[in-house]
Amino acid sequence: MTPAPASIGDALAAIDTPALIVDLDAFDFNIARMAAFAAEAGIAVRPHAKTHRCPAVALRQVAAGAVGQCVQTVGEAEAMIAGGISDVICTNEILAPSKLARLAELATRAKVGLLVDSAEGVERASRAAVAAGSVLDVLVEIEVGMGRCGIAPGGPAAALARLVADAPGLLFRGLQAYNGRAQHIRTHAGREEAVSRAAEAVRATQAGLAREGLVADVIAGAGTGTFRLETAAKLWTELQVGSYAFMDGEYASLEGEGGAVQPEFRHSLFILAEIVSAATADRAIANAGLKVMSTEQGRPSVFERPDIEVTGVSDEHSRLELSLDAPPLGLGDRVRLVPSHCDPTVNLHDWIVAVRGDVVEDIWPVTARGASR
Amino acid sequence: MTPAPASIGDALAAIDTPALIVDLDAFDFNIARMAAFAAEAGIAVRPHAKTHRCPAVALRQVAAGAVGQCVQTVGEAEAMIAGGISDVICTNEILAPSKLARLAELATRAKVGLLVDSAEGVERASRAAVAAGSVLDVLVEIEVGMGRCGIAPGGPAAALARLVADAPGLLFRGLQAYNGRAQHIRTHAGREEAVSRAAEAVRATQAGLAREGLVADVIAGAGTGTFRLETAAKLWTELQVGSYAFMDGEYASLEGEGGAVQPEFRHSLFILAEIVSAATADRAIANAGLKVMSTEQGRPSVFERPDIEVTGVSDEHSRLELSLDAPPLGLGDRVRLVPSHCDPTVNLHDWIVAVRGDVVEDIWPVTARGASR
Repeated sequence: MTPAPASIGDALAAIDTPALIVDLDAFDFNIARMAAFAAEAGIAVRPHAKTHRCPAVALRQVAAGAVGQCVQTVGEAEAMIAGGISDVICTNEILAPSKLARLAELATRAKVGLLVDSAEGVERASRAAVAAGSVLDVLVEIEVGMGRCGIAPGGPAAALARLVADAPGLLFRGLQAYNGRAQHIRTHAGREEAVSRAAEAVRATQAGLAREGLVADVIAGAGTGTFRLETAAKLWTELQVGSYAFMDGEYASLEGEGGAVQPEFRHSLFILAEIVSAATADRAIANAGLKVMSTEQGRPSVFERPDIEVTGVSDEHSRLELSLDAPPLGLGDRVRLVPSHCDPTVNLHDWIVAVRGDVVEDIWPVTARGASR
Repeated sequence: MTPAPASIGDALAAIDTPALIVDLDAFDFNIARMAAFAAEAGIAVRPHAKTHRCPAVALRQVAAGAVGQCVQTVGEAEAMIAGGISDVICTNEILAPSKLARLAELATRAKVGLLVDSAEGVERASRAAVAAGSVLDVLVEIEVGMGRCGIAPGGPAAALARLVADAPGLLFRGLQAYNGRAQHIRTHAGREEAVSRAAEAVRATQAGLAREGLVADVIAGAGTGTFRLETAAKLWTELQVGSYAFMDGEYASLEGEGGAVQPEFRHSLFILAEIVSAATADRAIANAGLKVMSTEQGRPSVFERPDIEVTGVSDEHSRLELSLDAPPLGLGDRVRLVPSHCDPTVNLHDWIVAVRGDVVEDIWPVTARGASR
């Protein structure tokens, strides 16, 4: 683990760079806004820990009313439960016997669930739970348009649910109906159509379940790009939103209902970087590159500096090009970069420096950093 | 730090996935090939630790004749020196006083250098070396076409070298003439032209240095894409190659002299992944995503399986699409993914599992993982 880039009480200017910082005013706003939405709509929120990999963030979400956390890996589940979260669903298919054994062991100490989309997955999970003497909650994942995991909705999903219901050590809880691709469709109409197709798949599967004498208590899914649509559909019971807490360049570019880009959450996550070279007036080089931010969704932007464009990112550098009328950047000057994709960016860091105004208020260890197994 | 995904002596099939593995036969071939080239050409090799962030790799490079290591950050320098490397150049501008103090302290125990491209950089480095009672080697970085760091070649660079030579605690050693952009020009002719422009910049600066009564003992630069060209130019004295040890999808796609793509190094670095969902015959989902491999240079390929295409990568998944005649992939089957960009991929991992044939021969900790400060 790398040394923390700051101490509690430090001034913003004293943070060693590059550093991952969270603006607490914006972060608190985002957490409160989602909590208020969910309370008013009467829907559960189970935020996704793949976004933050950080129990300190998870505990704040739970304190605001979240029912627990989603995770994507067994390592994330271990970190969340070690960090004080007592209700975790692994929104992923887990097949490896060694991983299922770890998950079943966690289920002796916390409420733990996972997804299945195959009979083999049901059998292996059942074996692990029986061996550990625990019970695993299970959601059957149905394919709702993402083209990734998930069994065909309707009859095949219902038949798999029947296997779950009959398997020792497993408790059939409901359906996972998540379309990750829909989160990133730029137009509101496009996202609406995707969610409406997912809703059809859910209804078809509910009908199949009824024929099996089963009921899905939980219908889980949704993300920061679509959660209002799933809520409006009145089928989903749990929102698995993640990015809303931090936001990123990609989510901030989505169009709202009228076509305007007006994100309802604030950017709270930044890479704090420093200028280390400024050989020409129209160019400055910051000490933040591919190893502190993920750029597969595009280069970062410079927060509140539309007059600066990031035109290149290498291992440890970003090239900043300044427009003609931009105030120049000199050696040692600092900028806040907005990452295009928050989840893999946070995973590059051991620490989140939580800043309120100009002061470091807290330092949060990203204890599930690297926990992809 | 995450638990290691395997133990020495394990069978390949027992490695927990996703895991970063190195095929030692290919790795040894690459190390030996570069060493043989350098010995025959009479040029020094100082491999770049930003590629591997792993002292175990660095020690093997030094055992094969490398003069030391390049690093890009002070944290990497600390990890390399702690890992047994005694000669390290930080091929980067370091401006922050706290970082310079760490570098100057390292110079009390090892040979340590850094780059400058500004008078401010010279003054700050000098102050740190004097305070620590150590001497820092300094290369003046000249801009040779990358558009990143580096002072203008010729007179400006020579004047900066004069400042270095006159500064207490600093030793002027020579020039850094590295064009990272040139490494990735696809055609051989394009790379040739870029190196020839860099050579002109070096010659102009050498003339300026002569007028100052200075000599550059070291001319450093080159990478895996161009090292034969810099060597042929008979100006460079040190090759800063990194990727050759592992190779990646991007380097493997470069054209050689006649236009053919025939990489002279072998792929030794892979993500070992496992199929966790196979809902349809033409599709399989592997448990390796953005958090175990960097995709900003493109999606990975599946090693020795041209009949499979990776058509999507999310946080923890890759979607593999199989051609019509491809043997199907079932749950639990394993694939080796070739990352498009090795440096940021290695940085996502705490461990490199070194495999010979079907057996785990060694486990190397990536001790500088995350060390971007």
